[in-house]
Formats: sequence, C-alpha cells, structure tokens
Amino acid sequence: MMTTMRTADLTLHDWAVAEWLGAGSADLATEDLVGRVVLAGAFQMLCPGCVSQTIPQLTRVAATFPRDRVAVVGLHSVFEHHDAMTPHALRAFLHEYAVGFPVAVDAPAPDGGPVPQTMQRFSFRGTPTLLLFDATGRLRRQVFGHLADLQLGAEIARLEGESGSTSLEVGAPSLQEPGCDESGCRR
Amino acid sequence: MMTTMRTADLTLHDWAVAEWLGAGSADLATEDLVGRVVLAGAFQMLCPGCVSQTIPQLTRVAATFPRDRVAVVGLHSVFEHHDAMTPHALRAFLHEYAVGFPVAVDAPAPDGGPVPQTMQRFSFRGTPTLLLFDATGRLRRQVFGHLADLQLGAEIARLEGESGSTSLEVGAPSLQEPGCDESGCRR
Amino acid sequence: MMTTMRTADLTLHDWAVAEWLGAGSADLATEDLVGRVVLAGAFQMLCPGCVSQTIPQLTRVAATFPRDRVAVVGLHSVFEHHDAMTPHALRAFLHEYAVGFPVAVDAPAPDGGPVPQTMQRFSFRGTPTLLLFDATGRLRRQVFGHLADLQLGAEIARLEGESGSTSLEVGAPSLQEPGCDESGCRR
Amino acid sequence: MMTTMRTADLTLHDWAVAEWLGAGSADLATEDLVGRVVLAGAFQMLCPGCVSQTIPQLTRVAATFPRDRVAVVGLHSVFEHHDAMTPHALRAFLHEYAVGFPVAVDAPAPDGGPVPQTMQRFSFRGTPTLLLFDATGRLRRQVFGHLADLQLGAEIARLEGESGSTSLEVGAPSLQEPGCDESGCRR
Repeated sequence: MMTTMRTADLTLHDWAVAEWLGAGSADLATEDLVGRVVLAGAFQMLCPGCVSQTIPQLTRVAATFPRDRVAVVGLHSVFEHHDAMTPHALRAFLHEYAVGFPVAVDAPAPDGGPVPQTMQRFSFRGTPTLLLFDATGRLRRQVFGHLADLQLGAEIARLEGESGSTSLEVGAPSLQEPGCDESGCRR
Repeated sequence: MMTTMRTADLTLHDWAVAEWLGAGSADLATEDLVGRVVLAGAFQMLCPGCVSQTIPQLTRVAATFPRDRVAVVGLHSVFEHHDAMTPHALRAFLHEYAVGFPVAVDAPAPDGGPVPQTMQRFSFRGTPTLLLFDATGRLRRQVFGHLADLQLGAEIARLEGESGSTSLEVGAPSLQEPGCDESGCRR
Repeated sequence: MMTTMRTADLTLHDWAVAEWLGAGSADLATEDLVGRVVLAGAFQMLCPGCVSQTIPQLTRVAATFPRDRVAVVGLHSVFEHHDAMTPHALRAFLHEYAVGFPVAVDAPAPDGGPVPQTMQRFSFRGTPTLLLFDATGRLRRQVFGHLADLQLGAEIARLEGESGSTSLEVGAPSLQEPGCDESGCRR
Repeated sequence: MMTTMRTADLTLHDWAVAEWLGAGSADLATEDLVGRVVLAGAFQMLCPGCVSQTIPQLTRVAATFPRDRVAVVGLHSVFEHHDAMTPHALRAFLHEYAVGFPVAVDAPAPDGGPVPQTMQRFSFRGTPTLLLFDATGRLRRQVFGHLADLQLGAEIARLEGESGSTSLEVGAPSLQEPGCDESGCRR
C-alpha cells in the first residue's frame, strides 16, 4: 500500500551509504545534496517494478528539473538475493541501463541481517520506495510503490517553492506542417 | 513547435463562449472559474492527438488536484471540418468518451470565417493548445502541443503556491502480498 | 464478451454497403475482395475502443501482410448518435486520422430503425467487431471486442495457408552500434 | 539490424546447454522439444530490451498457443559482464520476474572466451535473438532484435500448419454493460 510515513525527524543525514556508484558519483557525499530538493528512489536491480517504472521516472525528473535546484539519486537497498545484487553486479546494471544519476549503496546491517541500514532506519516496506527531502535535508514524503508523474511534479515544485522561485524550461518536439498528426492539428 | 505566448494581458475574461456543454456545465459561466487555478485544453473532437493525449491528461489533472483549487475545462475550438464537429456532434463525443469536465464551445467568428473568436484572440497555432490561468484569471502559460505530466504538475503547483497553501492527497492501489509483482517487491 | 458466432452460412456477399469511402475506395465493390483473406473491422467513429485500438490494429495488419493476399477494410456500422456519425463526418474522420484502408458504410435499415443492415445480418453485438473471411469469401471468425495481435496474426496466417503458400517479409529498425539500448545488446 | 541467417543446416540438436533452469525445467532435455514448433528467445538478464520486450512477448506466446504444439523457452547467452549474470543470479532473476517457461543456460566456451557455444554456432549478433524451429527441430528463422506480435503470430502459425491442423482458443475480458468503455460500444 502507498503509505506516508511519520517523517518528522528523519533527514538525509540518517542515510548510511557504503559507497556511491554510477554517473556523477565521483567524490559525492550525501551531505553534498543538502541545499537542493532531493528525490531519491530506493530500488533493487532485480525488482521488476523498480526497473520498468521507478528508474525511468527518476530519469524523467532529472531531465525536467534544473540540477542545481533538484537532485535525483538512487538508493540500492537490497533485502533479498544479496549475492545476485552485489555492488559489482549493480555496476553492470547501471552501465547496461545507462542510468544517468548517482546511486548510493545502502550500507549492510552490522549484524549480518538481510535488511540494510538506511532501509531499517526509514522503515521501508519494500522496493521501490520514493523519498522526497526538502532543501534543508528533511524528509517530507516517503511512498512505497509508485507516484504518478503529475503528483510527483507537483510535490517537487511545492518543495522548490519553499526555498525560493523556480524557472522551469519547456522543451518539446516541433509541430510544423499544416494538418493533423499524432501530436495535433495545425492551422 | 511548443511556444510560450506573450500572455501579459490576456485573461479568462477574453474567452468568447457560445455555450457550455458536458459534465458540470449547468449554469456555468467563465467568470465562475476565477478564484482557482484553471487548466484549459483547447481541442477539436476529430483531432487525434487531442483525443489520445490531451483529454486523458485533463482527466488525470482533474483527478489529482482538488476541484476547489484547480479547475479543469475543455475548449472546443473548431477551425476545420466545421459541419462534422458541431456542438450537437460534440455532445455525442463527450457522452461516448465519458468526459468528466465541462467544455466551452468557442464562439464562431462574427464574419463567418473558419477560426473561432477565442482561438483568434489567443492566437492559437492549432489544437491541442493548453492554457494555464492563475487564480486571478490571468493567462500565465500557453502551449501548442503537449506538456509532460511532470512539467504540467509542477506548473500547476507553482500557480497554486502563489495563492496559498496546498494539500494534495495521495491515492494508489495496494501492494500487500510479500514478494515481487509489477509494482514492487515487499518484505 | 468476445464471441464466436455461428458463421457457417455468412459470406462477404451478405454485406449491404451504401458506399465505399477513404483510401483505395475508388471503384471498389465488395465482390472485389473475394480471392483474398479479408480482415474487416466494424467500428463507429465515436467509439473510443475502436479509435484507440481497432483502427491502429487494422493499420498494422495492412502493413504486415501483402495486399494481394490479405485485404484490410473498415465497416462503419452506426447504431447510435446517427446524426453525429454521418458519411460526411466519417469522411472528415478518415482524413484527420489518416486512415489508409477503404471503409464501407453499412447500409441503413430500410425501415428507418437504428441498426444498419450488415450489422443486423451478422448479429453484431456492438462495436468494434472483427470479421475474418477466407479467400472464398466465407466468414470464418467474428469477434466482438478485441483480439490480441499474436492471435490475429496466427488466424490470418492459417487462412492464408488454406489458399496456398505465403511469403511474409520482415522489416525493422536497425541496431548498429555496439552496446545496449532500448532494443538490445550488440557484440 | 534484423537479420535472417543462413539457417539451412542448424537444428535444435546444435544447442549446447549447460543446464536448464526455471519453471518446467526439471528433467528437461533439449531433445524433448522436438515434435513441436519451438520459439526460443536468447537473452541476457541485464539486457534492457530483452527484459522489457522479449520476455513479455515469450510469455504472451506461451499463453496464446497450446503447449503441446508450441514450446516456448529462453536461452541465456551471456557474452559480457559474466560475473554479474551467473546461473545463480539468473535463478534470482527468473524468480523475481516470475518467468513461466524453462530457460537453458548457454554452455560457456571451452577456451574460456566470452561468447558461449550456442551463440557461436548460431552466429548471434547479440541479444535479444529470436529463433524459430519447426516441429522437426530445424531452424527456420533467426532474428536479432524484435519481431512484432502480428508477424510472430503468423510465422508460428505457418510452422504449425506444416505439421498438421491447429486449434487456437480465444479468451478475453467481457464487455457486458450497454454503452461505451475503453473496449467498445455495446447495443
């Protein structure tokens, strides 16, 4: 079920990250994200709904909002089939899927249990889980499952609005010839 | 091409409406929309991109944002095949497609020309055209073609933010059994 | 419900056609279709499922099978909102949707009733209805609703097989660069 | 690029299989497939196009054609990132994606090279590759990339036709209430 957690006290600083992988991960630390709205998608590389829906949605968000105002990151929170979803395998996955944002590896439980540390602290019910942090680093929204683009776009914009003005750009394919096509009808 | 018009001086009061049809149209006047953010989709009932994309998107917006804060309406701006897209035919279309929001019929040109009055005043380049008005009725955005849900959700939220706080609700299907399915993987 | 009719005695010669419209309709008579497998899609121009699914599927079939072996046609069988779905309006629809196959207008009932003649003779339960005729003109399959592409492709091929050998051509976009993309991974 | 290979002499007996995994794989040997039309999809578990398109298509084929006439199998032909796509990891993948057909693991090259044996013998250009064998086990079609459902359904039916009559069943959701919905319009 989609759930909103009691998120009052959790922040980006509560993340436990073993390492950062993928595009833009060099020298990245979790603290570097503070100052921007942060959309994080917790996933497992062998979770079908994560692969077919969450990762493409994170990619769309990264393409829609300016990077200096909204940060998009993945969080690899593996709680099953650990030996099939190692950081090494994740690296191959990120390469094959051409994932364009950095991904944090959730730190393994110190007691050797299956649920990694960030997943435990934030009480994820499974993957995918979306997390929205405001520009101060405070967790404002946590959802197990999926959030429609309209809703997600609105929620990001609201958090952006709290920290100052926004300037979204529009880009889209041209419609030039008179007549109708898939896109529309021109005069 | 997607275009942002010079929209400084246009408002909802510049609409020329012959009649309102469809769900929620009884006793509706354009002025009644002022006080809310307004998303209007100008379309033609035989425009393929309008039918396959714009009307479903308007329906999603109406289901996502609270009706007392964001109004969604259609505008039937016919500039070709007028005798196949009469208000009478539009009524059948709205019924068959179960369109759930009111639709304004753009007033025909007084000189008998093909382009209706609102389309002329707002310089639509064709259909679909999306129009966003802020809660004071001022046109803030006009786009020929399509706007992605993420972008549209963000723009609506920004206009909402200008006129006070928002309270979006989340609703979504349940994920209950342990294991993976299309939606995700549960502990 | 999807239904298979008792089709033993019905043939293409039982169609009652008021006129043929659209691409390839000049001088076309129903009898001209005999000698080929015929896929006909009965639809109404304001039937949402017909527009979003059946017409695109007919277009795909026309692009997949050689025209001299498999004929694809539409049949406009209007049983409601007659004054919004006239042959004149249908002509505008076929133009706006760029329909690439000929469409027969089902002949109105002689007694002025709402259900046209072919629809009555073949006992359509509604629209869309798919009809498959073998190369002798005999009705072999009638389905109310939709048939998946895999199933439809198989059924057309079986009827083709009855009347001699087939030679399907394959065409598809190239995958050329090494590495992975949406389509696959190359060596 | 989609290619048709020179397939005259290759048969199912040319497969080199290290082991069979997944649903229906117990005691399965490649020879057991002979006597039925065989659709095989060669894939890698981290190949995006294989996961998003080929595996769902194989699942649809398995659901459309009777199992005693058409066999559907996967072939895991790994030529890159071998340590992330081991048989052990594949087992987790097949479980998480609920793959409902057996999958052969292509036998590693004896010289330790990256390209497995079946992939070499059949000269795959990459993954996905679709292979169609007739009921005698002879390779009749090999395609690198994707084949549309209409085309694939037709090709399977033609091979079925060579080995005797077919009896496809139709199953589909009901349309029961009068009026229109996504599927169609009922009388």
